[in-house]
Amino acid sequence: MSDQEAHPVRREEFLGALLGDRGAAVGDVVLPLLREAVEGLHPDLSALCGYHFGWRDVHGRPTGKNGAGKLVRARITVLAAAAVGTVTAGGDAGRDAGTAAAAAGTGAVAVELVHNYSLLHDDIVDADERRRGRPAAWAAFGAGQAILAGDALTALAVRQLAEVPGEAGRRAVAVLVGAMEALVCGQAADTALEHIDPDEVTFGHYFDATPKTTALMGACAETGALLGGADAELAAALRQAVAAFGLAWQISNDVDDIWADPARTGKGAFGDLRAGKRTIPVIAALRSGTEEGSRLRSLLLRNGPVPAVSEERELRAMADLVEAAGGRRYAEALAERHVGEAVDGLGSALPPSVVRDELTGLFRRLVRTD
Amino acid sequence: MSDQEAHPVRREEFLGALLGDRGAAVGDVVLPLLREAVEGLHPDLSALCGYHFGWRDVHGRPTGKNGAGKLVRARITVLAAAAVGTVTAGGDAGRDAGTAAAAAGTGAVAVELVHNYSLLHDDIVDADERRRGRPAAWAAFGAGQAILAGDALTALAVRQLAEVPGEAGRRAVAVLVGAMEALVCGQAADTALEHIDPDEVTFGHYFDATPKTTALMGACAETGALLGGADAELAAALRQAVAAFGLAWQISNDVDDIWADPARTGKGAFGDLRAGKRTIPVIAALRSGTEEGSRLRSLLLRNGPVPAVSEERELRAMADLVEAAGGRRYAEALAERHVGEAVDGLGSALPPSVVRDELTGLFRRLVRTD
Repeated sequence: MSDQEAHPVRREEFLGALLGDRGAAVGDVVLPLLREAVEGLHPDLSALCGYHFGWRDVHGRPTGKNGAGKLVRARITVLAAAAVGTVTAGGDAGRDAGTAAAAAGTGAVAVELVHNYSLLHDDIVDADERRRGRPAAWAAFGAGQAILAGDALTALAVRQLAEVPGEAGRRAVAVLVGAMEALVCGQAADTALEHIDPDEVTFGHYFDATPKTTALMGACAETGALLGGADAELAAALRQAVAAFGLAWQISNDVDDIWADPARTGKGAFGDLRAGKRTIPVIAALRSGTEEGSRLRSLLLRNGPVPAVSEERELRAMADLVEAAGGRRYAEALAERHVGEAVDGLGSALPPSVVRDELTGLFRRLVRTD
Repeated sequence: MSDQEAHPVRREEFLGALLGDRGAAVGDVVLPLLREAVEGLHPDLSALCGYHFGWRDVHGRPTGKNGAGKLVRARITVLAAAAVGTVTAGGDAGRDAGTAAAAAGTGAVAVELVHNYSLLHDDIVDADERRRGRPAAWAAFGAGQAILAGDALTALAVRQLAEVPGEAGRRAVAVLVGAMEALVCGQAADTALEHIDPDEVTFGHYFDATPKTTALMGACAETGALLGGADAELAAALRQAVAAFGLAWQISNDVDDIWADPARTGKGAFGDLRAGKRTIPVIAALRSGTEEGSRLRSLLLRNGPVPAVSEERELRAMADLVEAAGGRRYAEALAERHVGEAVDGLGSALPPSVVRDELTGLFRRLVRTD
């Protein structure tokens, strides 16, 4: 993890090769690649994906926007690749900064494609009708087309990564598809979470479902690191740190579902609460031993084990009970603890650098517990 | 393609290594591997997949059956691997029959997983309520769970194949995910086919959709050949031959949809005709210039461009018109021509052998135009 002589890639060179000039953001580099990949699909699927990413309206007309969300996963992939550029002697011999940068760019596109396949399918599975401030793709184009579009993005992601030459590319494919498997398993656990009796539900049930977020997040760091030339040990350390951030972010999204302004999140308010999902604030409230906790329990159980369809007013009352029972405070503290773990993990794995600071800054910005 | 000295694998040894004793069928070897892979998934997804494959009923109880369909794709993969065992000098040096057999077994599991993901999703996309003589998985377990189960099978397929060591494994992954991409593109074209004006539809529109069958079928031969030690040229020749068989089989399935006994196919009768799909017999009838062809056209257009929901009696009338206009005869001749092409392709690529005869026998049995 230290013989810098053996590996000629310097971090600055590496970022420079990927980003062209220093001022370019990761999105400016990754977005055209992502768009090019998606626009090569069957026209019907490309139209749906263009709408989902935000480039096109429902009739296929350009929106003039460069959407595709926050590209958090692409950023992590590229930053992980850049971060390992100066600290590892592993990986393929003789790779230069340009090769590593091209591979990291492909990795960044692949993880965003996988993330967006999971959004397309998840919105159907969870019957979420809103995404990024507009009707979800399945609501606009039909579930059948959204299923096919998600399948196309999956295949596209792995196919592109499988074209990266060398042992690093091979290992990156194995990491990505392993994460896809864990992600789906987490989604299945997440669906099951809706049906667990409020008297039985534990934090353990919740953690069974978190790979839906943490698996891909960790894989971004691991594939990025491998493509940047890291050895397996360093790549695994970065995966672990970024998975901890993923957990914090998931918990913070659970908090946002209940208390954030829908105009900021782009999703409907109370999506989880309406579906009867047992998220961290809800579980903490149920297990708080407070009066508000048991009133919440009665509300959740009023229709028996099946989650009841709730009115906005009732959902607000539930949110207030969760907060009064300490559920929000608990969730925010837990998110904060896992961000701390992520930052410490990066600190142990990587020497101080601008890139490491960018990663920790990203973690802090995304998990705001203000 | 000829230096037999350099490659120690003998076909008989190879099949022996895969099948244990000579009497064992491919299914006996592949099925336990397939089942083991699927039963490692999240319990909810494993239950759904067990139902889909036929091992379990809707309540998760064992059916005592060893279902999983005809395993045509697994057979082709294994036979392709065995067929190239004695004819190629390519591939990794020093592999023995056991290694090649294990790799081919993994390949056979992977292609069946991909095939079954596509069935799970396709039945939702096409709103097909029957599969293998029972309610389709989405009809029994809900679309959301069937979407997740399909996604899990995809990830499982690629992850398993990505674990096959060496350059052959790497190339097999690239071939499989390339086929997955083409398969989805074909499915999108197939969906679009339902909405093409009967006056405009050509055989070209139909052929845009056939990769839904031919892409994976060809990939079975190509991955099998690569895992068996073939070089790229031989693997591509086998892919081409088996893709021709896939096309013949697709056309033969189109014929079956209209004229076969549903008890034999396990699906509802007239699924395609009801959905307004423009299959080969229908397109041939529409373009026949016959009186029956134009009566068929009037029936298809009676509700404007949207396919009308048709009664059984009306579907029978359409089937009779297609037959009288020569559509059935045309489709059967075309299927026969492509089977011939497949058999000739195998004949050019491979020397005479028991394994080659098994492959051609499989083609002939599956595309019966009696």
